[in-house]
Amino acid sequence: MLRTINASAVRLSRPSRQLRGRVLGTRHFSCTQYHFAQRAIQYERNGEPSSVLSTITYPDLPPPPAYGVNIKYLLSPVNPADINVIQGVYPAKKAVQQFGPSEYGLVAGNEGLAIVESLGDEARNKFGLKEGDWVIMAKQQAGTWSSGLCVTAQDIIKVPKDVGEVHAATITVSCCAWSGQGISQPVNPPTAYNMLRDFVNMEKGDWVLQNGANSAVGEAVIQIAAYRSLKTINFVRNRPNIEELKKHLHSLGATHVFTYDDLSNKSTVSDIKSLAEGNYPKLFLNCVSGKDTTAMLRLLGADATVVSYGAMSKQPLSVPTSYFIFKDLRTCGFWQSRWYNQHTREERIEVMDSIIDIIRQGKLREPEHEIVTIPGTASDEDATAMVKDLMRRVEGGAGKKVLIKVEEVQ
Amino acid sequence: MLRTINASAVRLSRPSRQLRGRVLGTRHFSCTQYHFAQRAIQYERNGEPSSVLSTITYPDLPPPPAYGVNIKYLLSPVNPADINVIQGVYPAKKAVQQFGPSEYGLVAGNEGLAIVESLGDEARNKFGLKEGDWVIMAKQQAGTWSSGLCVTAQDIIKVPKDVGEVHAATITVSCCAWSGQGISQPVNPPTAYNMLRDFVNMEKGDWVLQNGANSAVGEAVIQIAAYRSLKTINFVRNRPNIEELKKHLHSLGATHVFTYDDLSNKSTVSDIKSLAEGNYPKLFLNCVSGKDTTAMLRLLGADATVVSYGAMSKQPLSVPTSYFIFKDLRTCGFWQSRWYNQHTREERIEVMDSIIDIIRQGKLREPEHEIVTIPGTASDEDATAMVKDLMRRVEGGAGKKVLIKVEEVQ
Repeated sequence: MLRTINASAVRLSRPSRQLRGRVLGTRHFSCTQYHFAQRAIQYERNGEPSSVLSTITYPDLPPPPAYGVNIKYLLSPVNPADINVIQGVYPAKKAVQQFGPSEYGLVAGNEGLAIVESLGDEARNKFGLKEGDWVIMAKQQAGTWSSGLCVTAQDIIKVPKDVGEVHAATITVSCCAWSGQGISQPVNPPTAYNMLRDFVNMEKGDWVLQNGANSAVGEAVIQIAAYRSLKTINFVRNRPNIEELKKHLHSLGATHVFTYDDLSNKSTVSDIKSLAEGNYPKLFLNCVSGKDTTAMLRLLGADATVVSYGAMSKQPLSVPTSYFIFKDLRTCGFWQSRWYNQHTREERIEVMDSIIDIIRQGKLREPEHEIVTIPGTASDEDATAMVKDLMRRVEGGAGKKVLIKVEEVQ
Repeated sequence: MLRTINASAVRLSRPSRQLRGRVLGTRHFSCTQYHFAQRAIQYERNGEPSSVLSTITYPDLPPPPAYGVNIKYLLSPVNPADINVIQGVYPAKKAVQQFGPSEYGLVAGNEGLAIVESLGDEARNKFGLKEGDWVIMAKQQAGTWSSGLCVTAQDIIKVPKDVGEVHAATITVSCCAWSGQGISQPVNPPTAYNMLRDFVNMEKGDWVLQNGANSAVGEAVIQIAAYRSLKTINFVRNRPNIEELKKHLHSLGATHVFTYDDLSNKSTVSDIKSLAEGNYPKLFLNCVSGKDTTAMLRLLGADATVVSYGAMSKQPLSVPTSYFIFKDLRTCGFWQSRWYNQHTREERIEVMDSIIDIIRQGKLREPEHEIVTIPGTASDEDATAMVKDLMRRVEGGAGKKVLIKVEEVQ
């Protein structure tokens, strides 16, 4: 157990409606005895995260009910979709969180890894959970940018510890996001795993076409495809260090890597087509759209499916109608949130177990990441400033995946 | 039996390779006794129909083999796809036809209504056919622009005479075509019937959205949808006599008719959406593409399917990627030729029977049409000139559906 009880944490304010959303002072809380304090990154109205987010300190959680589990978050990703939810431009609803008798707000964060701190009897007996277990969220928009929560056992899934904190924190549901940068792809392996499984029946040796191959999902697609003995034709933007990027993608298992520039050369296109030796790709995973994506369509065989999960070009997907009519092309979309809503808890666990298997075999690398800790020693004023700083960085397009760790208030 | 034997027809040339494609003289044919002559509209190389087509007169058919059926064509549609096949820009192959011992060519025409003239024992006993039966083609690219052919019983389907010649001649397979006018829609009811049946499970009262609603398929969609108690939101181009056209479409059973101009008015779009009372269309039949079609997408509900079967705008189908991801939109194509290839003879007969039922109930009108006869009294020179004239008219975009009747040579 990682909890350290700090004497100063016993002095807590009773949050009042007047103070809602403001930094709270610390004073004795007279009615109930709290041992230490929780902290959440919350907002009360939609807007740019760097404007509307603040941290709030609130009393520790009461003992959980029979099916309840008190969890403490270890690592929670900052996904582009989280930003969109805060901005209010995302079709996902947050549940209002009660911080105290009269204090309410929306806690940011959709996915995260947590440790079980205490739990009710039913949660223990019917869900096989115990103190110290690692769990991830089985319910969306749980409010993971916080130090801890009381959740119901049904809404969490136990994960083995040998996959490591970063993998475990990013293995759950994912959402894509849209912004000035277009619709960006989600970051989690389930998106790659499900897209490779759910649309086209792929056999060993079959080819997959994808763009944005160096995105987080793109890299997961390369690795999971390689694990399944599928071959990949990958497209990325040209850049000064293109050879280095190609080498990196090949090291993940990419069969071929090209740039969109190659699409303007007829003989290169013909060469690319010949690679598949007549067994042309029947699956095209698209997170870009726009004219390069249209140009890639000619690399597909008849009866192919384009699955779109992002639109980094900010352009629509434009398809010559003849492809639909004469080549039997199908286009559709994938959204892990929808997948999640349309599948049972058992199906979700099955996908997670499959991905854990791949991780355990060393076939799926951790995403490049950076961990940002909101320390328990910081005041809410300082913690809020740290969060706003981080959000400004993320809004500007942080390179690496950011994982946030909100410590309990000491 | 409509055959009239004419003494002059007995004198026939033996076609020679040297004369192939040219107008043939008439003289005694020494080896075999022919009673009269057949005529076909044929070509030896691809090109504009008005350049490459000619008629050829060739000896009457020998008695059919056991599974053979000698048929005489009554009416054969001139479809845009037939033009494309002759131009060589269509993904359909013609079988080479043998006119005599050394005479070969490609006979134009894909669909048509014929009458059985004579047949082999197996065709009679195993397929239940008899002289005088009306039949349509169960095989594509049969070469229907001719006076008669010997076919196998497997390749034809008997049709009841009470549906009338025009309905019967246009009830079979259809192909769409592409040209300077874009990809145009096919003309036959099976396209409408199958598109309404195969993609989305539609219940009574459900809504269908379509554009090009005054096209031949569009009108069939309106009628078949009305027959199935489905409601239709139909779009057409604005025009001076728009009220007249709307009245016409309403008379066929259209629930609502709008013009693409209405799409630029936000409040009209909102009004159109409210018509479906929350039960937004899940099926959108598209034969136009381009920006108006993109604008129509917002009239769809979540989880909808766009089926494209034409592209009269000559533009691609452009879809905001977010529709795929967040609204679970699917887009695909329909091509009656593919449907035909992927379904059994029994399934084809089943569709035909269903459409005949609708016709018999008076719920499906004959297409507007014009019948062009190539008379048996005309020389091949004159007949060729007539065909070329007709083709020039059709290439220029004839308004009505043209049905051709190639008479036997007298």
